[in-house]
Amino acid sequence: MKKSLVALALMGAFSGAYAQSSVTIYGTLDAGISRRTDTDVTAVGKRDNNKLGFRGVEDLGNGLKALFQLEIRYEPDTGAIESTVRPLFQGQSRVGLQGDFGTVRLGRGLTAWQETSTAFEPWSGMPAVAGYQTDLQVAGYTSDPLSVAGNSANRFSNAVFYNSPVFANIFQLNLTVSTKEANNNPAIVGRGTTAAPQFPANSMAPKYPYSVSATATQGPFAAYLAAERNAVATKLWSVGTSYKPISELKLMATYQRQNQDYSLPINPVTKAWMIGANWNVGLGMWRAGFGQKTPDNVLNSPTIAKTKQFSLGYDYNLSPRTYLYVDGTRKKITPATTFNYYSLGIHHNF
Amino acid sequence: MKKSLVALALMGAFSGAYAQSSVTIYGTLDAGISRRTDTDVTAVGKRDNNKLGFRGVEDLGNGLKALFQLEIRYEPDTGAIESTVRPLFQGQSRVGLQGDFGTVRLGRGLTAWQETSTAFEPWSGMPAVAGYQTDLQVAGYTSDPLSVAGNSANRFSNAVFYNSPVFANIFQLNLTVSTKEANNNPAIVGRGTTAAPQFPANSMAPKYPYSVSATATQGPFAAYLAAERNAVATKLWSVGTSYKPISELKLMATYQRQNQDYSLPINPVTKAWMIGANWNVGLGMWRAGFGQKTPDNVLNSPTIAKTKQFSLGYDYNLSPRTYLYVDGTRKKITPATTFNYYSLGIHHNF
Amino acid sequence: MKKSLVALALMGAFSGAYAQSSVTIYGTLDAGISRRTDTDVTAVGKRDNNKLGFRGVEDLGNGLKALFQLEIRYEPDTGAIESTVRPLFQGQSRVGLQGDFGTVRLGRGLTAWQETSTAFEPWSGMPAVAGYQTDLQVAGYTSDPLSVAGNSANRFSNAVFYNSPVFANIFQLNLTVSTKEANNNPAIVGRGTTAAPQFPANSMAPKYPYSVSATATQGPFAAYLAAERNAVATKLWSVGTSYKPISELKLMATYQRQNQDYSLPINPVTKAWMIGANWNVGLGMWRAGFGQKTPDNVLNSPTIAKTKQFSLGYDYNLSPRTYLYVDGTRKKITPATTFNYYSLGIHHNF
Repeated sequence: MKKSLVALALMGAFSGAYAQSSVTIYGTLDAGISRRTDTDVTAVGKRDNNKLGFRGVEDLGNGLKALFQLEIRYEPDTGAIESTVRPLFQGQSRVGLQGDFGTVRLGRGLTAWQETSTAFEPWSGMPAVAGYQTDLQVAGYTSDPLSVAGNSANRFSNAVFYNSPVFANIFQLNLTVSTKEANNNPAIVGRGTTAAPQFPANSMAPKYPYSVSATATQGPFAAYLAAERNAVATKLWSVGTSYKPISELKLMATYQRQNQDYSLPINPVTKAWMIGANWNVGLGMWRAGFGQKTPDNVLNSPTIAKTKQFSLGYDYNLSPRTYLYVDGTRKKITPATTFNYYSLGIHHNF
Repeated sequence: MKKSLVALALMGAFSGAYAQSSVTIYGTLDAGISRRTDTDVTAVGKRDNNKLGFRGVEDLGNGLKALFQLEIRYEPDTGAIESTVRPLFQGQSRVGLQGDFGTVRLGRGLTAWQETSTAFEPWSGMPAVAGYQTDLQVAGYTSDPLSVAGNSANRFSNAVFYNSPVFANIFQLNLTVSTKEANNNPAIVGRGTTAAPQFPANSMAPKYPYSVSATATQGPFAAYLAAERNAVATKLWSVGTSYKPISELKLMATYQRQNQDYSLPINPVTKAWMIGANWNVGLGMWRAGFGQKTPDNVLNSPTIAKTKQFSLGYDYNLSPRTYLYVDGTRKKITPATTFNYYSLGIHHNF
Repeated sequence: MKKSLVALALMGAFSGAYAQSSVTIYGTLDAGISRRTDTDVTAVGKRDNNKLGFRGVEDLGNGLKALFQLEIRYEPDTGAIESTVRPLFQGQSRVGLQGDFGTVRLGRGLTAWQETSTAFEPWSGMPAVAGYQTDLQVAGYTSDPLSVAGNSANRFSNAVFYNSPVFANIFQLNLTVSTKEANNNPAIVGRGTTAAPQFPANSMAPKYPYSVSATATQGPFAAYLAAERNAVATKLWSVGTSYKPISELKLMATYQRQNQDYSLPINPVTKAWMIGANWNVGLGMWRAGFGQKTPDNVLNSPTIAKTKQFSLGYDYNLSPRTYLYVDGTRKKITPATTFNYYSLGIHHNF
């Protein structure tokens, strides 16, 4: 007892001293110079999200492990976190256990589907303007629409995350279920009116949001099947496949369909598809993709955009952790906007 | 001289390179699923505060040490810092020296009393709903009322912290004194009027806020005596004791009395007491407590709440750093609110 | 392929696991007690900026290195980041390459001139009230006036940073060029009117902001020549020199001239000079300086301030990483303000 009181004063300076530190710091700093042809500014921007993370694994014995991970996201050109409405640990904040049963975690992170689909996208799921992950690869879908706009397009907060073991060396199942917690979000009109919005300010989700993905891998083939329902009952399903005819080449194709009929009065369906390739040549890798996103009834409603995107990129590896890149993309959003985007930068993992 | 200029360009990339790094990263990630019976939401929440901290000790020779500690606080369910009005290093930011004279630190942290009292609370001072630290254990008192509401219930900013050595292997004295600095705080009406608030916006403290605690430990017994005065001259005193009849069992009891007569025109006194126990059984530990908080003149003023709380919890240790927990509590706030609260989660130190 | 999908679920917990961590954590925690004679508050403040940084170097072979650095800035007395309008990584966020060609980095950081001039200032460029760096040493100039007020007085965001190798063991060239990106900045009236401000809200820079400095060092002598143009076309040039008659003594002198004629209708020129010394005596170091800042036409326009500052400081080194300090300064800002400022504190590098 004496020790615990003497230790008290020290706790101020050293709380947690009993716990032998086992934290790994990791991250990404990616910055480049870019130009978008429909603006007249050359900018310093990014291809990948920029991370500063802290993670650890504790071996509990008997095949059981405790895991945690915290990940800050920031903009390298200004030094700020990604946006004022995003949390400090936008990347993720999760803690859980891993064992024979798989992995169970609690907190905030990418949904099962969003995490799965990144392996089937030619820019590896990076939010590059040239990439497809944040728009065509998800059919314009938002995983957390009840948070403030811009907070979280592909994550669940207040969620439980489960990843199964790999069955028969082929199959894996991933599941994310969120609670209905309301997080001070603004009102959403949806099928309501401004005076009586469908989701008033600080609304709870009408149903439990979930995301599920199943993956199969065998030799050079891989495929996934996924479905997700968000907090305003928008449903999405998605399929994807990849094939490696030779070890240097990976071909990818995905299709996804979003149905917003719970909250959108007209044109609730959006479909999108994407094909892409990664081709390793010496120290370099080419990335290429083409994709299209089509809202429902688009022909009858010309004000609704149809999006086409063609992209080409090249990575030159200076080391396993560092590469230079150049991206070029042409994006056409019918009928309003067409632009080219070019960027040249450096991507550094630490 | 040449070196210092050549080094200049490098300083941008490596400032601080001269200082051999000696930083320990530590923290806590605690997340659980909880339910409060007066709401209809199952939520992902926490039992303990969630920390990511950085600390270090430098041996200066002759028994002298330099200490620093910085501690981020965050919510695991959303990845955000604890609140938008709380600083990045809400946990603490302190630097100082330790030697034969004790420990002197400058910055922001728990007051002497708040830090002392956590050892006499059955939830170890965690801000768990089942715990007593943030309400009954402090008689509803706020250490820093002149900061924005929600900023700091139990910390002093702009303060000097002193912890004495342990005298005669029994006694220790802890003292915190804050300056009168005004930190952009809002107006407080208090004994004034809305037009002429007692503490106008950005008020300085009328007196120097201080906090003092004395502790004594001998064999299985421990006790403390503490007093604190905050920036609006609210006074608090508190006593507590603990006893371990056997090494597996720790019994605790505290009493505290808050007097807000400088800023509250009626019912300025709040009294609270709490009894509790921690009982280790194998890999598990039971936590139990009962407490009550009574504002003055409560019988004559039925709109003022009287609070009663009974709580029971259980920890199951997976390792010295990781445990699973379950908490249940019943809290009755007369006359308005009664609720039960249940939670089940994982607590991981790193 | 199988591995990459199995790894997928783990990526949530361990993304970046492939990259062997090579991060150094460093920082400064400086806190002291201070008193400014024209206020009646004794405060807890700082002499240096307070940092928590993360940096790394990766050897890419052939003399090529990849560098990154991220630096949080905070206030030790409140635990908050430096200001709500400053980014998390206010210190810097930069990534780049270093080789025979010099160092090229992208991101946000001190401009070439601001970084160079710190070596010619007796408080080592610290933002101490007793120091000269943030006012007289820069003739009141702001490197990034189009950001929100208070965001960045001496940094470029969205910039490319180049440092040359040292030529002939004497000369080095440093260059920073920013883009014209608009970062949600407020309107600036300048030569315009409130109704039609010269720089409307979210203005782009009229010209590319740049900063250039050249340094020369030979034996006990060092000198620099620098010029900078900011986003509202304010021009500044500066010269400085230092000399060490004996190894314990360093004498410094600088002169700078700011011309705001692009945005200020009257009195656009500000001139400032500063002389200073650092004198090492045993474990201590004395710091002394005197300087003056003179806006143009000040005699004809008595409402425009002329600033004089005399400062004296002393460091006592407890170790190469930790020292105690005392500062005293007298600052006279004609005609309105004269104050003395005293501070006593501890400075700890980690």
